Amino acid sequence: MPRFLQVVSVTEAVHIITSIAAPVSTETIPLEEAGGRVLAEDVTADLDIPGFTRSVVDGYAVIAAETSGAGEALPAMLRCTGRVLMGEGTTAPIRRGECVYVPTGGMIPPGADAMVMIEYAEELGDQVLVQRPVASGENLILQGEDFAAGAPVVSSGTVLSPQDVGALAAVGRTRVEVFKRPLIGIISTGNEVIPIGTKPTGSQVRDVNSYLCRAFAESSGCRTRSYGIVRDDEETLAAVLKKAAAETDGVLISGGSSKDARDHGATVIAKAGSVLVHGIALAPGKPTIIGKAGDVPVIGLPGHPASAYVVLMVLGAHLLGGLTGGGPRPSRVESAVLAANIPSARGREDYVRVRLDRREGEAPVATPLFGKSGLLNTLIQSSGLVRVPAGAEGLEAGTPVEVLLW
Amino acid sequence: MPRFLQVVSVTEAVHIITSIAAPVSTETIPLEEAGGRVLAEDVTADLDIPGFTRSVVDGYAVIAAETSGAGEALPAMLRCTGRVLMGEGTTAPIRRGECVYVPTGGMIPPGADAMVMIEYAEELGDQVLVQRPVASGENLILQGEDFAAGAPVVSSGTVLSPQDVGALAAVGRTRVEVFKRPLIGIISTGNEVIPIGTKPTGSQVRDVNSYLCRAFAESSGCRTRSYGIVRDDEETLAAVLKKAAAETDGVLISGGSSKDARDHGATVIAKAGSVLVHGIALAPGKPTIIGKAGDVPVIGLPGHPASAYVVLMVLGAHLLGGLTGGGPRPSRVESAVLAANIPSARGREDYVRVRLDRREGEAPVATPLFGKSGLLNTLIQSSGLVRVPAGAEGLEAGTPVEVLLW
Repeated sequence: MPRFLQVVSVTEAVHIITSIAAPVSTETIPLEEAGGRVLAEDVTADLDIPGFTRSVVDGYAVIAAETSGAGEALPAMLRCTGRVLMGEGTTAPIRRGECVYVPTGGMIPPGADAMVMIEYAEELGDQVLVQRPVASGENLILQGEDFAAGAPVVSSGTVLSPQDVGALAAVGRTRVEVFKRPLIGIISTGNEVIPIGTKPTGSQVRDVNSYLCRAFAESSGCRTRSYGIVRDDEETLAAVLKKAAAETDGVLISGGSSKDARDHGATVIAKAGSVLVHGIALAPGKPTIIGKAGDVPVIGLPGHPASAYVVLMVLGAHLLGGLTGGGPRPSRVESAVLAANIPSARGREDYVRVRLDRREGEAPVATPLFGKSGLLNTLIQSSGLVRVPAGAEGLEAGTPVEVLLW
Repeated sequence: MPRFLQVVSVTEAVHIITSIAAPVSTETIPLEEAGGRVLAEDVTADLDIPGFTRSVVDGYAVIAAETSGAGEALPAMLRCTGRVLMGEGTTAPIRRGECVYVPTGGMIPPGADAMVMIEYAEELGDQVLVQRPVASGENLILQGEDFAAGAPVVSSGTVLSPQDVGALAAVGRTRVEVFKRPLIGIISTGNEVIPIGTKPTGSQVRDVNSYLCRAFAESSGCRTRSYGIVRDDEETLAAVLKKAAAETDGVLISGGSSKDARDHGATVIAKAGSVLVHGIALAPGKPTIIGKAGDVPVIGLPGHPASAYVVLMVLGAHLLGGLTGGGPRPSRVESAVLAANIPSARGREDYVRVRLDRREGEAPVATPLFGKSGLLNTLIQSSGLVRVPAGAEGLEAGTPVEVLLW
């Protein structure tokens, strides 16, 4: 029998989800397509980056000691023996009394150990008057200073940002190994649920959750496949779940908000594999189910879209993040001061929607929007969620809080 | 002639970019594909959502006044005249002395104005003993309470979040009008720049910027097309820019970091259209160019990838956001306390890379990573950027700052 409403903590639920959500397999793709994907190898530098000591200014490569004491009144006089061109090497060493023009990014000739900026030098024929001293190493990037050959550059499990992609380009990776994007099966249940193109009659409601789950899973780096709307009927749901588990890497079932429907979900998951959690100390979201159909992880979400979305953010993100290999995508958060008390029962994590009012020069104010968790409009008209920890009996007005922004 | 290094403020530069970056055109797509896209219409509710007054609990629909004074010792006794099934309507009105079983999400029968939770009621044959009073409206969501027919739901210019997609599903939008994803042309210039699959010799460097720009533009909701690596040669660059401007909606050219190359960029853009800005009070990023090739907006970025990335975040985001119709994508930010002084010249916006150290129960500490802005490794090994406003002569240790996270 499923553990029916043997309520576990959010922390424990996250731990259980994480333990059953591992990345599936890897593939090698062109770097051009790698932005936002999850790296599945540890990449190191193939050679020193930069491969040569380069200038970061336009000016003259010099032996720093020869500029010691130089000033406008008494400039150091050096003979300019040549110009380094961009993209070309230079092997002729600088000798005492000499300098070489080097543009920004150009290679420093052997023997030179600093660059004098062009602003502090004056050319007189083949002589250069240096009007400021430079220290050894000044205005240079040394060979291998960015990445030494063999040094770690980007590690496995990284969700590749544009900068990561740039770093992989710098070390010459035209192709990289990434985790495959997991395929998530989405099942909507409920006798009252109808396709969104239909006009509801009686107490029918449109299938919001399929779209919510799909968009959430895709924004978390997954692909999705919809298994449609299933009536509250054990046999039908069992058949659809079996098919989804055979074809996908993870399944999201959205309830059936009635008690009968909730019971069906747990029974069907138990028969298809096992129910690991049924009931979480979380509001909204208490009747959430975590289980497996065969080896495929399944989350049973509440039927109310607004509750389902909180469960997706708090728990679903860990399932999808585990399957992608990159972990849950970080939320945007904003610090604020609570405008009103939030009452809460100790032992339960509450997520309360808030409206943020930003004020110039002061901390933003987060006003709790209480009321009906079944309303969809507050999901898009509020700014985000404030979490009331399980150990607290609510939060008092004036408390600094972190708002998880939508 | 271009306005060469007639330095403008970041605010002015953003204003100029925004004025030349308008969304291109729109297309109608299935809602399934709309997550992350930018809505190009104002969507209103097609009918009342919910379309009927519904219960948010499992229990009994009652006339609230009849439960007045009810308690465990003296329950109100009502005759249960039926059960509402999920997805089915009910038209038989409740009369005085009656109640009807309604599951969560079910329709409230006419005449009833509250729900008694099943936990506070006891069935005895066809009688129900109600052990707590309920107020009128309790445990209900009224018809149209979520969205009244005709009410605004999601407005044009919204980057569609999963919740927005859910709300569009609720109002029956199987297809929505969105702005087309703009196509961004990417040109890399510099005689020293080579394809990343090549092993650099002499002072050659791999083409990091094409990959950086591509990944940044795609993470901002754009498509991209690469125009390869162009030598520092006015005629060649002019031909490539002309082709890119004819085929795309916006162009990013990354410098040539040498002074000669920078000059070429401005000259070529001026000849293809106009240079609106050349030089911004921004560090790193001063030599940035903003202009147009024909009617197509162009940004000329610095050649150093680390500088180029700051310019993409501070200015490029406004170009891409304007072209997508959704505005610049919001950055994740984190409040922190500065660990060391940041010196800065008044009149210039400085962006300094910082490392964030998070500590339990205290504000995170942001340690500035000074040094060479040409280094790529600090772009991926730091946490983000702290902005020093143009009006400040630096920031002192201990100052609260907002870190723009990578």
